[in-house]
Amino acid sequence: MKSDLLMQVRKLTYLDKHLLCGDFGLEREGLRVDSNGVLSFEKHPEIFGDKISNPYITTDFSESQIELITPAFNSCEKTYNFLSNLYNIVVLDIKEDEYIWSQSMPCIIPSDKEIPIATYNEDSQAGYEARSYRELLMKKYGGKKQLISGIHYNFSFNEEMIKRLYENSNEEIEFKQFKDDIYLKMVRNYLRYRWLILYLLGGTGVIHESYTKECVRQLEEVADGAFSNEGAVSYRNSECGYKNKVDLYPDYSSAAGYVKSINEYIENGIIESHKELYSSVRLKAKDNNNLLESIEMDGINYLEYRSIDINPFDKCGVSLDDLKFLHVFNIFLLLREEQNYEKWQEEADENQNLIARYGHENIDLKLNGEAIKREAWSLDILEEIKLINNELSLGKENIIDLMIEKVKNYKLTYSYKIIEKVKNEGFVEAYMSLSKGYKKDAFNNRFRYIGYEDMELSTQILLKEAIKRGIKVEIIDESDNFISLEKNNKVEYVKQATKTSKDNYISVLMMENKVVTKKILEKAGIRIPSGMEFHDIETAMNNADKFINKPIVIKPKSTNFGLGISIFNEGSKKEDIEKALNIAFKYDRTVLVEEFIEGKEYRFLVIGDAVAGILHRVPANVVGDGSRTITELVAEKNMNPLRGRGYKTPLEKINLDDNVDLFLKQSNKTVSYIPKDGEVVYLRENSNISTGGDSVDFTDGIPEKFKKIAVDAAKAVGAKICGVDMIIKDYDDKNSSYGIIELNFNPAIHIHSYPYIGKEREIAKAILKLLELI
Amino acid sequence: MKSDLLMQVRKLTYLDKHLLCGDFGLEREGLRVDSNGVLSFEKHPEIFGDKISNPYITTDFSESQIELITPAFNSCEKTYNFLSNLYNIVVLDIKEDEYIWSQSMPCIIPSDKEIPIATYNEDSQAGYEARSYRELLMKKYGGKKQLISGIHYNFSFNEEMIKRLYENSNEEIEFKQFKDDIYLKMVRNYLRYRWLILYLLGGTGVIHESYTKECVRQLEEVADGAFSNEGAVSYRNSECGYKNKVDLYPDYSSAAGYVKSINEYIENGIIESHKELYSSVRLKAKDNNNLLESIEMDGINYLEYRSIDINPFDKCGVSLDDLKFLHVFNIFLLLREEQNYEKWQEEADENQNLIARYGHENIDLKLNGEAIKREAWSLDILEEIKLINNELSLGKENIIDLMIEKVKNYKLTYSYKIIEKVKNEGFVEAYMSLSKGYKKDAFNNRFRYIGYEDMELSTQILLKEAIKRGIKVEIIDESDNFISLEKNNKVEYVKQATKTSKDNYISVLMMENKVVTKKILEKAGIRIPSGMEFHDIETAMNNADKFINKPIVIKPKSTNFGLGISIFNEGSKKEDIEKALNIAFKYDRTVLVEEFIEGKEYRFLVIGDAVAGILHRVPANVVGDGSRTITELVAEKNMNPLRGRGYKTPLEKINLDDNVDLFLKQSNKTVSYIPKDGEVVYLRENSNISTGGDSVDFTDGIPEKFKKIAVDAAKAVGAKICGVDMIIKDYDDKNSSYGIIELNFNPAIHIHSYPYIGKEREIAKAILKLLELI
Repeated sequence: MKSDLLMQVRKLTYLDKHLLCGDFGLEREGLRVDSNGVLSFEKHPEIFGDKISNPYITTDFSESQIELITPAFNSCEKTYNFLSNLYNIVVLDIKEDEYIWSQSMPCIIPSDKEIPIATYNEDSQAGYEARSYRELLMKKYGGKKQLISGIHYNFSFNEEMIKRLYENSNEEIEFKQFKDDIYLKMVRNYLRYRWLILYLLGGTGVIHESYTKECVRQLEEVADGAFSNEGAVSYRNSECGYKNKVDLYPDYSSAAGYVKSINEYIENGIIESHKELYSSVRLKAKDNNNLLESIEMDGINYLEYRSIDINPFDKCGVSLDDLKFLHVFNIFLLLREEQNYEKWQEEADENQNLIARYGHENIDLKLNGEAIKREAWSLDILEEIKLINNELSLGKENIIDLMIEKVKNYKLTYSYKIIEKVKNEGFVEAYMSLSKGYKKDAFNNRFRYIGYEDMELSTQILLKEAIKRGIKVEIIDESDNFISLEKNNKVEYVKQATKTSKDNYISVLMMENKVVTKKILEKAGIRIPSGMEFHDIETAMNNADKFINKPIVIKPKSTNFGLGISIFNEGSKKEDIEKALNIAFKYDRTVLVEEFIEGKEYRFLVIGDAVAGILHRVPANVVGDGSRTITELVAEKNMNPLRGRGYKTPLEKINLDDNVDLFLKQSNKTVSYIPKDGEVVYLRENSNISTGGDSVDFTDGIPEKFKKIAVDAAKAVGAKICGVDMIIKDYDDKNSSYGIIELNFNPAIHIHSYPYIGKEREIAKAILKLLELI
Repeated sequence: MKSDLLMQVRKLTYLDKHLLCGDFGLEREGLRVDSNGVLSFEKHPEIFGDKISNPYITTDFSESQIELITPAFNSCEKTYNFLSNLYNIVVLDIKEDEYIWSQSMPCIIPSDKEIPIATYNEDSQAGYEARSYRELLMKKYGGKKQLISGIHYNFSFNEEMIKRLYENSNEEIEFKQFKDDIYLKMVRNYLRYRWLILYLLGGTGVIHESYTKECVRQLEEVADGAFSNEGAVSYRNSECGYKNKVDLYPDYSSAAGYVKSINEYIENGIIESHKELYSSVRLKAKDNNNLLESIEMDGINYLEYRSIDINPFDKCGVSLDDLKFLHVFNIFLLLREEQNYEKWQEEADENQNLIARYGHENIDLKLNGEAIKREAWSLDILEEIKLINNELSLGKENIIDLMIEKVKNYKLTYSYKIIEKVKNEGFVEAYMSLSKGYKKDAFNNRFRYIGYEDMELSTQILLKEAIKRGIKVEIIDESDNFISLEKNNKVEYVKQATKTSKDNYISVLMMENKVVTKKILEKAGIRIPSGMEFHDIETAMNNADKFINKPIVIKPKSTNFGLGISIFNEGSKKEDIEKALNIAFKYDRTVLVEEFIEGKEYRFLVIGDAVAGILHRVPANVVGDGSRTITELVAEKNMNPLRGRGYKTPLEKINLDDNVDLFLKQSNKTVSYIPKDGEVVYLRENSNISTGGDSVDFTDGIPEKFKKIAVDAAKAVGAKICGVDMIIKDYDDKNSSYGIIELNFNPAIHIHSYPYIGKEREIAKAILKLLELI
């Protein structure tokens, strides 16, 4: 047996490794519940848009049954990360006290007639059909079973790999048939071996008493309202689950045969359409709306495994390691030779049912009519999978070894662990503690687009906002923060979240050049600091008399990060001016010496014709409580999940470095000082976020007058997205002095989206609106 | 006298030097003539647009009398350069065999009724008035005198300087009156001392017999058709010139007095309007269309000196040194105390008339009724001017010394020199040789915007094209090649000639990133070289097997100047690929390895929806004549004015350096080799213009098919101005292989505007059209 397999494996060893990969897509359903584990009656949130057109977020049978759909990616990691992001996005936009139920079998559910069926805009043909189909299902199967949620795993091999195999095969058939044969073999093998996946990944060994009576009544109560039987692995995949009225055994010997058998079921009124065939695996086509025709025409395009339970212990409902295991498992299904046995489908169903109900025991299964122990057979299969892994250097031996452990010890399975948790904590608490933890985690990571943490935060935030609203996202160039956004066939490219098609090039170049900016703002009658421009240090120093002891700012003409800027707010000596000029000339051939305007600096973020956010930065600081030291207060402040290191978070942790010591020394303090209750102690001179400064939202506090000035300034250079840095002495005073010191063409959005103090502003939404995508 | 002046000068010495400057503007008229010096009957070229709205180029009295007008600049150099540019622009857009007559007194002119009066669009009020006024002048003064052309010199002091003087004065008057008094004193002094300017700058001591009979008949023929008298300096400023019917002596004691006296002349029918007062100097107001009202309301704004003759020896009609001298002269006029003498205006007129007719002699002039020798008085004045120069460190001593020499030796004056030239060469030839030389110089500098040669050629070319068409230009930031263009209150900002408001920012960023460009072009179905992208050298080398011995290009992801690119058109070994990767990784974190497409590379310049030019570059080469060596052929090729050094010209000179020697060695040649007649010898491998390569225009030769592909590529990224680099194997073959290797968002325009071989393309015009300015 092993040597047969080896021969098969050798067919693949010469292939480039990337060809062994494939495309992975996931669908994950989940019931919305309140904090007590009761099915929610809230509507599907409007922010997710039209259920039919949002490619990522929709509902399944019930209005309260959210379905998350990833695109197909060429690695498990990417698919898993996308699903994580979908979960994080969705869970924060349902009601604050709503959660996503963390197992496949339902939460506490009402009677059929109270279960809310998903609503659609029934004016549209698609909407009408979606609703009608659900009403039919309700009648035929009842609502409770329809609430069962699961993981659907979509897989296809790399087309190039199949082509290579075809080229190297001696079979005299068309490529289409060759490819169909591959997928049909995998389907048959999946059906044969799915009991093992059930054992390893199953997680529905306990149900709530509100579930269908005929199911509950077979079981024993193991906790308050929770029912189970000894050894249960997956009620979802048992007779208690979602099954057709009669056992159906379609023809999996050829694509044509498959299509014929399904059509017969439909003609005979057994099922309404191919969608109603509740098999553990489905053949998928290029055009799934016309599945059967498309399979006949174009062949099988990919497979959908439908028997994987939600893993309660993973936020996504499926763990990354399990996805990686499924990948080797797929290669095993591809290579594993089949033996002839007429009743193979019935036998496979029986094996599945046995595992579903009694999997933890080392029960007898059937292999071609012969009895075989669950454990022994499992180990045989896993040995073969390990051999494949090793021969092809897939690097998944640790994952396979863990599976072997699970086979040997059922207490390691998800199904056993979750039953134990339910027994210990109670049904609702066991699941809700997990769901609540996942929601909290999503909140703490609300600024983060998982898997792309090296991209700028602003881009991560924009990606999440787009996905939420059903805008298709694509990362065109990760290192360049270059993405595309598509909705209704309208494509917008965006770089660094704020560089878009809406801004014209010359506006950007105006802002990039401080001299040009000043000239244009001046022409538009907007107050800017007066100043002079120098091209060499000699000329600048010849004019030094004009600047000595006057409040000035010395800065390079083109800089966007505050580099090379010196501020003398109380004037300075000639020597210091010369030093500052020398520094500034390191960054640009042209240096500006400008009047220093007294006041606080505010960043106005202008998007379109409006100010989307106003932010003020405050130097790193702590507020005393009368008992803790500065060190202790900093440690606590650094716990805030918004604070991190290396610009991966909206705020940076405060470092108690030498600079802080020196700064504190000026007021005769050290980090051991215990500030009085309410006392604010600043730790640095500069207010940069990068050195632990705080960001404070002022969007609602600043009067309209200054907002209009900021918008006018952006308009003067023709900018649609623009960071306007304005100094205002006293914004409460209508006649307060002010001045615009800079326009930024690539303003960060994360600082407004997630400030330390104040309201989180919907900047990404404003950008999507500007782009006319929402 | 000197000590008085010293006291006055001291008033200024404490001022910042830049305050002593002022604003300078010039108007220069000039008759269009054919190559025989006969007045042209051609229409004013349409390309210069509407005569009334073009602020730079218009006509004066006659259709053939071009008037060039500079804006006011704060330095003589800038004004002079602008005038040079206007001359160069205009002289190349009149007919090929037309020139601009190079003296103030007319060329060979026809009888009055044949002189073409300037035509206007008489449907407009302004056009109708302009025409009517000219018809009135024709009737009143005859056409011949109206053809006299001149230099009008506009000057105002720095407003800040006048304010400082006001603040330091003890006079209890309004600032407006203080300022008026300054300018009125200058006017009076200009009238008193203008005879000296006439002597120094006058240049109309000879006239043609076709000029008015009453003038010609007083003189002697000094050459064929040329008439003069011994010692003549400026007939234009004599009774032969353009004068009012009677001598007019307006009141220059106050602004109100002046306005009153002009109004009286008008009321008495002596003149039609203030415009008809042909004084040597005019007071100018803020609103010159309502001059008298504006002077009363806002005061005197600047002065216009009108008695300066065209200097035949300077293309501009006035030399830069003379403009610099006039600046010190202005300060002299400001400071020079006046003496009371009732008949000062009559005396000043008399002095001018004497100098105009007999200035070369050391004649007696009158100073407050007393006789004074021309030379002695001149030297007195120039001594004072020199004192001012020295006290204020104006640095113009050499210029003043030259003026002193001219006073001592009339043979150094323009008036003497031009008469001598006429005597030697004949009237027509003397002037036409100058005019033809100026036109040739303009042609050789047709790509150059004088005074801004440090700006990119593309910007210089665009500036010239805009000025030609009456679009107001402003240089916003010279070092950044940032300009503004304004017409009919529509302002467009442009950087580097091709960065405009018409391109959106994201298009530019797409082009900047080769990975993104490729992805988008691929989506649009446009052929691009296949390739891979690497982020580190290890991964790249792991894939090296795919590239070894295959035709490839290795290049950094983002580069615009060909830096870091290696081409292996016949494949290469692993070691060389590694070297090339190392080089490319120096320029970018991401490196592309792309298929090398065989063929020649063409730069398609797409502007708007069309290809504005197609260029192919050829490596530095010479074409033999069977007698000269490579060295000699290169020397000749380098004489082409399009070739220069340091990118100041459209092409670079060929350097015969070691690389050329090495390259020639491959075919056993040296620079002493004498190529056969018609033999092309290439001198380098690379075709860069920067190493002496030739640019060859292919715009008309390349089939539409490829132009459409280039336009489609630009559209795919949404670019309005885009350089598309396409490789085409054989453009005559409809099925030729091709591929786009790069899109450039900042394409040079000068290479298409001034190719080495082929038609000069109107790229700047295409840009102005795109910007909707023409």
